Amino acid sequence: MQGNYNKYIPLIEENLKELGDNFSKPAELYDPIEYTFSLGGKRLRPALVLMACEMFDEDFEKALPPALGIEVFHNFTLIHDDIMDRAPLRRGKETVYKKWNTNIAILSGDVMFVKAYELLSQVPDKYLRPVIEVFNKTAVEVCEGQQLDMNFEERDNVSIDEYLHMIELKTSVLLAAGLKVGAIIGGASESQSQHLYEFGKNLGIAFQLQDDLLDTYADPEKFGKQVGGDIVANKKTFLILKAMEVAEKKENKQLRQLMNHPGIDKNEKVNQVREIFDRLNISKYTKSMLGRFHKEAFHHLEQLDIKQEKKQPLYDLADMLMTREK
Amino acid sequence: MQGNYNKYIPLIEENLKELGDNFSKPAELYDPIEYTFSLGGKRLRPALVLMACEMFDEDFEKALPPALGIEVFHNFTLIHDDIMDRAPLRRGKETVYKKWNTNIAILSGDVMFVKAYELLSQVPDKYLRPVIEVFNKTAVEVCEGQQLDMNFEERDNVSIDEYLHMIELKTSVLLAAGLKVGAIIGGASESQSQHLYEFGKNLGIAFQLQDDLLDTYADPEKFGKQVGGDIVANKKTFLILKAMEVAEKKENKQLRQLMNHPGIDKNEKVNQVREIFDRLNISKYTKSMLGRFHKEAFHHLEQLDIKQEKKQPLYDLADMLMTREK
Repeated sequence: MQGNYNKYIPLIEENLKELGDNFSKPAELYDPIEYTFSLGGKRLRPALVLMACEMFDEDFEKALPPALGIEVFHNFTLIHDDIMDRAPLRRGKETVYKKWNTNIAILSGDVMFVKAYELLSQVPDKYLRPVIEVFNKTAVEVCEGQQLDMNFEERDNVSIDEYLHMIELKTSVLLAAGLKVGAIIGGASESQSQHLYEFGKNLGIAFQLQDDLLDTYADPEKFGKQVGGDIVANKKTFLILKAMEVAEKKENKQLRQLMNHPGIDKNEKVNQVREIFDRLNISKYTKSMLGRFHKEAFHHLEQLDIKQEKKQPLYDLADMLMTREK
Repeated sequence: MQGNYNKYIPLIEENLKELGDNFSKPAELYDPIEYTFSLGGKRLRPALVLMACEMFDEDFEKALPPALGIEVFHNFTLIHDDIMDRAPLRRGKETVYKKWNTNIAILSGDVMFVKAYELLSQVPDKYLRPVIEVFNKTAVEVCEGQQLDMNFEERDNVSIDEYLHMIELKTSVLLAAGLKVGAIIGGASESQSQHLYEFGKNLGIAFQLQDDLLDTYADPEKFGKQVGGDIVANKKTFLILKAMEVAEKKENKQLRQLMNHPGIDKNEKVNQVREIFDRLNISKYTKSMLGRFHKEAFHHLEQLDIKQEKKQPLYDLADMLMTREK
């Protein structure tokens, strides 16, 4: 990560750490929260809150508590999602439900959720209702997105549109909400904060499609985890759904056989699926779809009526996110 | 249930039903919430919100959304608690995690939590911050109470003070918060709403001690569930903790043997433990402790500076709760 974005990170890390240090008892409830903070992460969501605030008001630190609130909420969703997805590892470390147990993961998640509201409430009175309303709406959507994602695992006929709707809810509305909350606290108008919301929503979808693409096509030297993990896990990403959509009968059958072949060697499976993707130009399709959301995002950023220089950090951040290799 | 309290119930039931009917998709997320509402319950918490509001303002319906919010939060905690406690039944029906599965119970609980905040936010602007603050504090405490309750299951040396602190957090602060929220919306002063909070907190502890007592000593004809269930489950209630405290060596050993006797007949166990309780006067000790909290509750109600007639519904309610047989 680079540029303007970087300047917010130490502030965020420092304050997350302080937040963790101030928790007390019962330890079973609060140790997992501190642990989760210590696992790190890009801190993209709180940085977006601060960046959006700074576009309208130099004193961006006033947006720090809600920025932390958005990050705490994001971490809460990870703890509960990891139980539901039976994920043993997160950022290379044991997940909370593995390290402790499911009960502790449920309950420390719940208490993080309240802590998120506590932090989000630390805004001037006039912004309290709009901030809480954006957050309530977003939190419901994120839960709906997770439920759809779980439903898709059981289904064989997920459409591209359904997939895009799911990632909009599960991933991108929280990025969008972060920008909107920051803008509100910076004193933006309704129209300005809404353009930032739409920018974030569309960029978030592009970001997730980029994630899907990287998982299969990243440079193994630079990628943080095993390339092809989504293929191994039969995860219904844009790539596989698109491949199913455009494949002729023969390749469709081949793909389904590869997905339903329990004994197959992992690398063999990744290579064979990737070969089919290559023949079907799936990478190109994904980049094209990603480009559409990227373009829509920038369309909203252009319509935002503030000085170009104020928008520059968001252009830089979007560039960085879209050219990342991990 | 009787008297003034009854007049609020149809309004609460009707609006909970409407709330459930308005949920849409994904069904996996919202059906469990509707189901939970349909299981019924005393609706004590939302009734307390409305009663407290009406003490200060005849137009108590303005407190309906936050009253429903408190009830939705309470139902959320039941759904998550039932997973953690592996409880198969609630009000004689399957619990959500049994009827659906743990993932659905986690996630539909999470979304209920947000719905609670949505409802609690539907108050006039000037009351938004105080209401959210009372609720944030209370929600954290309820989670802490549940964690302590789970910790106690693993421990052999729980003191009476620790137990009282646990039930204060797990049960009574939410009753207290309901009264406080209602009072705030009714326009009560800080001191008035605080006296109602303290009334609710102390009454809530007395209420839980009464629950403990009923579980062992209720009239089986009138009690809704199996009398002695706490004894069978080795639940650490006030009764058993007090018995351990006052018992001489011999009876202490007898009690521990009964608790650690896996093959023993349930009725035999209940009868033998109850005999020891009787010899040790545990019922009297419990009533005495309960009386102390009851007295403290009324002390706060007396100090509340409004007309006596306005307080009468709370006196009646407290009487009803303390003389109930189920």
